[in-house]
Amino acid sequence: MNNIGNCVIAQSGGPTSVINSSLAGVMSKVFESDNIKTVYGAINGIQGLMKENFLDLTKFKGDEQAIKTLKLSPAMYLGSCRYKLPSDYENSEDFKTIFEIFKKYDIKYFFYIGGNDSMDTVAKLSIYAEKIGFDIAIMGVPKTIDNDLACIDHTPGFGSAAKFIATSMLEVAHDTYIYDMKTVLIVEIMGRNAGWLTASSVLARNEYSKAPHLIYLPERAFNEDKFIDDINALLSKQQHVIVAVSEGIKNEAGQYISAKSEQVDQFGHVMLNGTGKYLEQLVSNKIGCKVRSIELNVLQRSAGHIASLTDSNEAYELGRQAANAALNGKTGEMAIVTRTSNSPYTVNYSTASIHDIANVEKTIPDNWINEAGNDVTEELVDYLRPLIEGEANHTFTNGLPTYLPVTHLVPKK
Amino acid sequence: MNNIGNCVIAQSGGPTSVINSSLAGVMSKVFESDNIKTVYGAINGIQGLMKENFLDLTKFKGDEQAIKTLKLSPAMYLGSCRYKLPSDYENSEDFKTIFEIFKKYDIKYFFYIGGNDSMDTVAKLSIYAEKIGFDIAIMGVPKTIDNDLACIDHTPGFGSAAKFIATSMLEVAHDTYIYDMKTVLIVEIMGRNAGWLTASSVLARNEYSKAPHLIYLPERAFNEDKFIDDINALLSKQQHVIVAVSEGIKNEAGQYISAKSEQVDQFGHVMLNGTGKYLEQLVSNKIGCKVRSIELNVLQRSAGHIASLTDSNEAYELGRQAANAALNGKTGEMAIVTRTSNSPYTVNYSTASIHDIANVEKTIPDNWINEAGNDVTEELVDYLRPLIEGEANHTFTNGLPTYLPVTHLVPKK
Repeated sequence: MNNIGNCVIAQSGGPTSVINSSLAGVMSKVFESDNIKTVYGAINGIQGLMKENFLDLTKFKGDEQAIKTLKLSPAMYLGSCRYKLPSDYENSEDFKTIFEIFKKYDIKYFFYIGGNDSMDTVAKLSIYAEKIGFDIAIMGVPKTIDNDLACIDHTPGFGSAAKFIATSMLEVAHDTYIYDMKTVLIVEIMGRNAGWLTASSVLARNEYSKAPHLIYLPERAFNEDKFIDDINALLSKQQHVIVAVSEGIKNEAGQYISAKSEQVDQFGHVMLNGTGKYLEQLVSNKIGCKVRSIELNVLQRSAGHIASLTDSNEAYELGRQAANAALNGKTGEMAIVTRTSNSPYTVNYSTASIHDIANVEKTIPDNWINEAGNDVTEELVDYLRPLIEGEANHTFTNGLPTYLPVTHLVPKK
Repeated sequence: MNNIGNCVIAQSGGPTSVINSSLAGVMSKVFESDNIKTVYGAINGIQGLMKENFLDLTKFKGDEQAIKTLKLSPAMYLGSCRYKLPSDYENSEDFKTIFEIFKKYDIKYFFYIGGNDSMDTVAKLSIYAEKIGFDIAIMGVPKTIDNDLACIDHTPGFGSAAKFIATSMLEVAHDTYIYDMKTVLIVEIMGRNAGWLTASSVLARNEYSKAPHLIYLPERAFNEDKFIDDINALLSKQQHVIVAVSEGIKNEAGQYISAKSEQVDQFGHVMLNGTGKYLEQLVSNKIGCKVRSIELNVLQRSAGHIASLTDSNEAYELGRQAANAALNGKTGEMAIVTRTSNSPYTVNYSTASIHDIANVEKTIPDNWINEAGNDVTEELVDYLRPLIEGEANHTFTNGLPTYLPVTHLVPKK
């Protein structure tokens, strides 16, 4: 089967530094096929599609320079949405609307680039298509900085976030070492349930710097007394203690640590402070030395200027893989990358059934965390190291990295 | 005069991405002189010098690879201190101690790389040397991300911080545009009294993105009602409003806005929230749309991986300039850079008396801020633009930028 018709690509969920590289990959492959006429981009995900908010991506055909710039542009060229399709296929207007639009625009190929929730959309659309006998390839292309998708060795976007986190960790370590005084630095890293991003800070360690000296992940219960004991034990041997902590750590009762730092402001409104800020205050109260906290925040997912070349190339190949599978008659699948060797690092690409992927969350295996729950094991380091290798070759304009303009995402009223 | 003897170099104050480039510049020049025998680095500034905590930098003579890596390494290779020498020259042990050490080690050249407070040290040491008739060249080499030194067009370290800030602003703007909903993003930038760093975020503006849409500097009093009005006015015309705000903004009564966000935690201890967090809450309360704040924190001064090549080269030349002046008999001066043309950007280097520089703080001229106090003028943009030009050519090791090991700053007990 090799359907003749048009194609829609959309992006969904949170951005990464390389999700546009996957978009470029899908585009490059579908542009090669004579069976696909017009390639639409739906602006703002499945919600944009339902509003027929389309951009004609066919204009990029043959424009190698724009495709190259797109590959290196962070965030989402097509914009995003956070929208879950209903589970009730029979009585939902959403499915009817979507498939009417598919019919109206003669869409035979639909690609959704996203994470967990987006794969739920891919699963539901492919089930509905089969139910009503609609001939269309519905394919998922993975992305998420969180690295929490099942059936895939690692997710595109994760390596670049990990590279930014490890680079920043090394740089703030240099920054911390300059003063000859007891200092605790707490670096809060993204990840509500999976500690992959926080763990990746371990890549900053080298022959002269062991920062982060402590790593706390959401996979283990967090104990405040033990945390203070851990820091004190290190401070008896060294001047500087640098801690990597996931925003999502919880205590033994399963409560987020960040929730403990809720404050009431002058108007009586609750202010939610971050995990790092809370722990900074805890160290200040219990130890009393110089302490600072840093929240890497959305820079982790948007710092395209320090993207991992390995990650960018893999994101591109996964886009091509999904398009290739769709052109070969596959549907209801997601492109995956499988590691075939760690040293030298080699991978291969294929696809897997979307139904094994949607709504499953992959956390760090317990045996990759040390017994004390304050560090990671060498196996995890070996797993992480290849993913941050290589630097994307950005061009710069007026001293800043050159990204593809997103004029269509910033409309004026 | 061209004294024969030894040399001490030290660093002080907060780090920058290029202060080590100035160190490399001083070293490269003094290594060329036959009159200078041993080049010491004092670890942890003037305090380290008083403890005779020296590193022999002569080992780097001829090691071009190490010097090149040093130029590109952020933070401070020699460590830092924050220590103000007393004003009472007659009754202070500090001056006696320092000059005894100068005598003991046959020091004829002393270079202090630092900001405002460090230039105070240079001024006092040069006065004391003259008082007691001690034959030594005491020279300052400027650095500070804050760009608040007098007698110099701009300070080394500022351009690299500005490049990181503008790059991050562009990247978080891309990140913000992806959702089709009213969103306010507040980016808190360093600068207690001078708004140069916050202003530099303006360099992120381009043909498709006008972020930051609002800029608030400490040079103007901050009014909360006007701030909310400014945002509402923009939200009536566009979906996304991105705000750059200096950590040091104060209200009409001269009180820091950040101080208003003091909270009491569960132990009854005061928690100081940042300016950004406070304004985030204010927007949430008064406008009620999606709002987020980001604090760029110490990443601004430590992100060596995105250093400005212009800045790095100038820092290096200023180090050489200071060394050259000292070798030609100057003392009590600081190396300065003067802009001779803006387009094309050209500068020249010289020295100025330290007494015109120490303890003076340069803020943004009033006519470089717009009348409404929520943006900057084109003159300021023209002044800033050349300073972030060019990218330092880092090598990478295991996916991370290669920095010179600072083993001597992380001693084990």
